[in-house]
Amino acid sequence: MTVLILTCEEDVTADMVVVHLNAAGVPVVRFDPADLTGTVALSGEYVHGAFRGHLSSAGRLVSLEGLRSVWVRRPGAAAARAAEPSAWLTEESSQALYGMLRGTGARWMNHPDAAVRARHKPWQLRLAQLSGLPVPATLITTFPQAARDFAERYPDLVVKPVSGAHPQDPPRAVPTTRVPHGADFAAVAYGPTLLQRRVAKRADIRLTAVGDRILAARKDTDPGGDPDVVDVRYASSATPWRPADVPPRLADAVRTYLREAELSYGAFDFAEDSDGTWWFLECNQSGQFGFVEVDTGQPIARTIAEWLSGPPPARPGSRRADHCGSTAS
Amino acid sequence: MTVLILTCEEDVTADMVVVHLNAAGVPVVRFDPADLTGTVALSGEYVHGAFRGHLSSAGRLVSLEGLRSVWVRRPGAAAARAAEPSAWLTEESSQALYGMLRGTGARWMNHPDAAVRARHKPWQLRLAQLSGLPVPATLITTFPQAARDFAERYPDLVVKPVSGAHPQDPPRAVPTTRVPHGADFAAVAYGPTLLQRRVAKRADIRLTAVGDRILAARKDTDPGGDPDVVDVRYASSATPWRPADVPPRLADAVRTYLREAELSYGAFDFAEDSDGTWWFLECNQSGQFGFVEVDTGQPIARTIAEWLSGPPPARPGSRRADHCGSTAS
Repeated sequence: MTVLILTCEEDVTADMVVVHLNAAGVPVVRFDPADLTGTVALSGEYVHGAFRGHLSSAGRLVSLEGLRSVWVRRPGAAAARAAEPSAWLTEESSQALYGMLRGTGARWMNHPDAAVRARHKPWQLRLAQLSGLPVPATLITTFPQAARDFAERYPDLVVKPVSGAHPQDPPRAVPTTRVPHGADFAAVAYGPTLLQRRVAKRADIRLTAVGDRILAARKDTDPGGDPDVVDVRYASSATPWRPADVPPRLADAVRTYLREAELSYGAFDFAEDSDGTWWFLECNQSGQFGFVEVDTGQPIARTIAEWLSGPPPARPGSRRADHCGSTAS
Repeated sequence: MTVLILTCEEDVTADMVVVHLNAAGVPVVRFDPADLTGTVALSGEYVHGAFRGHLSSAGRLVSLEGLRSVWVRRPGAAAARAAEPSAWLTEESSQALYGMLRGTGARWMNHPDAAVRARHKPWQLRLAQLSGLPVPATLITTFPQAARDFAERYPDLVVKPVSGAHPQDPPRAVPTTRVPHGADFAAVAYGPTLLQRRVAKRADIRLTAVGDRILAARKDTDPGGDPDVVDVRYASSATPWRPADVPPRLADAVRTYLREAELSYGAFDFAEDSDGTWWFLECNQSGQFGFVEVDTGQPIARTIAEWLSGPPPARPGSRRADHCGSTAS
């Protein structure tokens, strides 16, 4: 059975995983939905209560029933590179492609519904709390007075985007920033603002979860670093990421989070304080892992390849699996 | 506990439901997310493992924990009517509002994830098949030769959009149209095309499902009507909708569909053939019902009001309910 990878053409992270799939002799089809209806074609027939479907990429045909897993890495918008692109064609092509894939029973990394849901920062914070992960005191508000009250209770704050836009996604990339003392919160009324107690951190933790497998890395805070730069993604640092042990209770909480979020992949960011507590900052369901693997030598790409190579969910349960996210162990 | 209705300002369909909620003394808050951050404000605090949140609309404050249900009727894009609207503000406001609502444990009509999923026509067709609903032979393809082969097997075809755009959603509204004999399918290569065996219908069926309640209506096909007009939504007709009995096996299949789709509301369209078989055409998770209620006198609005007034899911299960759609019976 075949692994389907949906991603853009130049994606070295996907390349890292494909190497392992090839080595294991697992058939792979990889394309960018943007190439519908150019080099990518599809067909599905619903007759006599049954479904038969095919995808074709660069002349290679694969049966939809023969898919064991779908990795939604960094796909372009459907039909974006068509001869005559349009919003209508993108909508039709997206619904056709993902609509058919959703009906196959393949396992997903990650299912599109789980991916959309997982982006909601307020939902992330609540799920982290319920999963037993320590969450720094956080306020999301459009009430200036609520912001002022919060700043009185927690004088050392950072502000960050509600929507979790990432540095890789310009122009919406906004670094997490410290809030100066005596800040004027009047403008909070014009847009939801996320304020969070700043964790005085001694290390950043990046925890990569693939199914049940958890790999953590830590980067010690540079003692001579600028205390106003709190966002590790923007900080220049000579300190490398090093493998880190995961406290068992935290690993349990992470697995609970993933199960409830129906994610088979998640990149968690934590801030470690001077007591050694890992404070949950966010879980990015499409977070990069290449830089961690390069620094630490942890086999993340191989672990993803192994997950993608696993057996598809049993067909009798596939109706449920179709729409309720991963059946990742 | 309060019912939250998210919809645009002028929505007579929502008005019909609000009348019943008011009569039953059920508190209602209704606003359009487009009015964030003008007349609508929000605030949520995550402290010590707990969450406390509020919404305010036109000066009225409601606790997020006090919501029993959320009806996503026809909401505008978040913050679309803000003083200085932008894609960034819409994204931040949407994530803040829906991210908090997703964490409340309220029951949804319909949950946003279920709503997105339910729009996929290919997925609808597969789920209808698996639920035991008769589905006319259908092909979705970008292969001209597949279209030609299909047309040979099923000479009497209609073509319709894959993405299920509706007449209410210009400019993407495309009526279902008969395919002339000898049609040239070469252009199928440029965009996914949905071809379906035409059902020679003696009536259109509109089945409205609200939780476990099912109300069906039929409109007899006008014997003198133009046989080339197959889309009842575009046909002018003097024939009214009449209440219709639902065959028990079909009702079971509809309930299976809704349960698997995690929908608490669905408007099903069927075509009834000369044998009395109801052929599944589509299920619109946000389909209008006012015109059916006006013609048939069926208490659809009251049934929706009753569903919205039901108790919220038990808190211990709310984590699951948060993200896995309705817990509608």
